[in-house]
Amino acid sequence: MKYCEMSEESLKELLAELNNEYETIKTKGLSLDMSRGKPSSAQLDISNDIFSAINDTNYTTENGIDCRNYGNLEGIPQARQLMGDLLSVPAENVLVCGNASLNIMYDCVARSMLFGVMGCTPWSKLPKVKFLCPVPGYDRHFKITETFGIEMINIPMTENGPDMDMVEKLVKSDSSIKGMWCVPKFSNPQGIVYSDETVKRLAAMTTAAKDFRIYWDNAYAVHHIYGDVELLEILSECEKAGNPDRVFEFCSTSKITFAGGGISAVASSLANIEWMKKSLTVQTISYDKINQQRHVLYFKNADGIKAHMEKHADFLRPKFDAVLEMFKKELGETGVATWLKPMGGYFISVDTMEGCAKAVVAKCKEAGVVLTGAGATFPYGKDPKDSNIRIAPSYPTPEELSQAAMLFTLCVKIVSIEKLLGL
Amino acid sequence: MKYCEMSEESLKELLAELNNEYETIKTKGLSLDMSRGKPSSAQLDISNDIFSAINDTNYTTENGIDCRNYGNLEGIPQARQLMGDLLSVPAENVLVCGNASLNIMYDCVARSMLFGVMGCTPWSKLPKVKFLCPVPGYDRHFKITETFGIEMINIPMTENGPDMDMVEKLVKSDSSIKGMWCVPKFSNPQGIVYSDETVKRLAAMTTAAKDFRIYWDNAYAVHHIYGDVELLEILSECEKAGNPDRVFEFCSTSKITFAGGGISAVASSLANIEWMKKSLTVQTISYDKINQQRHVLYFKNADGIKAHMEKHADFLRPKFDAVLEMFKKELGETGVATWLKPMGGYFISVDTMEGCAKAVVAKCKEAGVVLTGAGATFPYGKDPKDSNIRIAPSYPTPEELSQAAMLFTLCVKIVSIEKLLGL
Repeated sequence: MKYCEMSEESLKELLAELNNEYETIKTKGLSLDMSRGKPSSAQLDISNDIFSAINDTNYTTENGIDCRNYGNLEGIPQARQLMGDLLSVPAENVLVCGNASLNIMYDCVARSMLFGVMGCTPWSKLPKVKFLCPVPGYDRHFKITETFGIEMINIPMTENGPDMDMVEKLVKSDSSIKGMWCVPKFSNPQGIVYSDETVKRLAAMTTAAKDFRIYWDNAYAVHHIYGDVELLEILSECEKAGNPDRVFEFCSTSKITFAGGGISAVASSLANIEWMKKSLTVQTISYDKINQQRHVLYFKNADGIKAHMEKHADFLRPKFDAVLEMFKKELGETGVATWLKPMGGYFISVDTMEGCAKAVVAKCKEAGVVLTGAGATFPYGKDPKDSNIRIAPSYPTPEELSQAAMLFTLCVKIVSIEKLLGL
Repeated sequence: MKYCEMSEESLKELLAELNNEYETIKTKGLSLDMSRGKPSSAQLDISNDIFSAINDTNYTTENGIDCRNYGNLEGIPQARQLMGDLLSVPAENVLVCGNASLNIMYDCVARSMLFGVMGCTPWSKLPKVKFLCPVPGYDRHFKITETFGIEMINIPMTENGPDMDMVEKLVKSDSSIKGMWCVPKFSNPQGIVYSDETVKRLAAMTTAAKDFRIYWDNAYAVHHIYGDVELLEILSECEKAGNPDRVFEFCSTSKITFAGGGISAVASSLANIEWMKKSLTVQTISYDKINQQRHVLYFKNADGIKAHMEKHADFLRPKFDAVLEMFKKELGETGVATWLKPMGGYFISVDTMEGCAKAVVAKCKEAGVVLTGAGATFPYGKDPKDSNIRIAPSYPTPEELSQAAMLFTLCVKIVSIEKLLGL
């Protein structure tokens, strides 16, 4: 029965029971972390063979590049091909970089601030720069734009991606809107895949700013859990629509091989790539080509990566199952929380009743389960409805997750009833 | 006999001979590169054992950090200790970063431009920012400051480091001077080691700008060739002198293990480190800890690195010998070129007569030997005297170097005589 349909008396009775349960769980002294999308140690073991992939017989690429020496700012050709195949874009449109795609995104914003995008005024010289931020979204994206003093505008997410009516209207009329953050596949935190129509509209829409760029963080390009879902390739859509330079696409192997020990890549139009290289060549001589070659040797090709991702999916599936089953069982009838079943990625996003998220996170913490801070999925850490909570089920074991999810549902129930009762 | 003391007739005769020699060499079709400080393939082989240093039994640090996972923005403690020991500074003053120290330097300048140094006005908001540039110096340093529109002031080098009278006078009176590039040990390109007095004066001098910082690129900290030379540790000197935050010190293992495949570090006061971390934490989650651990396991400690550097020295010495011997033999009596014997590093710097460097480099190229472009060792690529040429003897074999150095001396002679004769 939905809580909102229950009598005050029934709610009070239920609350007393739930509070008892909560006190019992507290005595167990749980200590679980569902705050970040960290792989567990056992999941990282899947990739251990990469340690021995490169040795003193194979450090030279097929075309004769000694990966131990300086040079090749763009990355070795084989790594550009590998990452290009992963994103379904030609190798020449790809730069393979260091261990963190976040760093390339930061650099792209910094470059735009300092030098301007392809001949346009540097953003640091403009009175106002704004970014569109689909919400809920990824806190580290928002932190970058916040750090640069860029004003962030919330765009509600739908099941097909960001609210495109709102996006189109805003970018058409406001030339200070210079960018937009997107996690188009298995979005962080909801696990939504942008629909073909959304991708086409993003590619085709009219923008007032000539230097508007979409920051297309394809962090989970091959990270399905319940079977793969196709995402329309945006660079070619942009080209078809006459906006070839609209997108910077990012990805990395941080959640394919090792978190922070992988390689990253940026894909874009050749003109954008040239623009990036102009300052990249001042910034560094080359990225770590040894790690690039290590990944090439380990995976051989994109099919190698895809086969590897099946292992990750098999590993993560029971964890997501554990949480989703508990949610369905404990919250399914209550009407006080909603969530989507993600088809891939690293998160489950829950929306509580308005004004409950912070209290739920605090209550979980009190009993030993750490969640991502409420509000973190919104620019400036401010969830206007105080309702979104991001659950990261990758690190604990399925058994621990059942415990943690159980506690979580209990906290949602208690906080919701308190809210309904006006306590 | 010195050319300047020779009669016009003798010079003309000599020139005819030398031109004949030059034409003969040209027919040999040489193709040698002495333009960049690249290690040769055989030199890189010295470090090949590092490929197998890390495996599935030792990816966890002594204190329990799984290097395959996210976290530890500062670098793993053992790598901070290793790089700190190398620089004779405490581990807590060290951040271990990615594969390129150049990138950290770029980031430090970018950070100062965008956010300002520790609460001071961002440089991008100032009408003028200047850097002192000891010359000849490293072209990639100058390219960074040029890219940010920072005005560069040439400071002549002496055998003890930059002309300190000039440095002290400038930084005391001009608050727009915000930084200074230094390669304090085996300087690029002269191989000069800053004297204790120079280091002490840099540490103690009064600067008009509160946010003045020395960019202390200790790129060749352990890269001796003819026996080690001690460089005074500058961070503690700055602290003693009451200027604890004056210096950012940089280093990397690019010329210890693999060029572009090593780890880098920045050392500074705790206050500076905190300032850097404030934006670093937005920029990235962590650097590649696997490669950090790989280096820790391979070297064990700073003594391990020092022993390793003996092998590099043994390898490079015959190359430097070949060039220096040829210079002495062919140019020693002519009075048309001067050079210092570097005790370490990767370069030999030659000063020709004024107005000859470009012509010498062009003449060498015509006969198949590529040198660093004349002027590259000065800000904006402009050597006011057109006399400095950087020789990079690390890549070719000693035999090739003898050939190349022979051609070089021939070109110096020809161009000098032409100059003396007013041709």
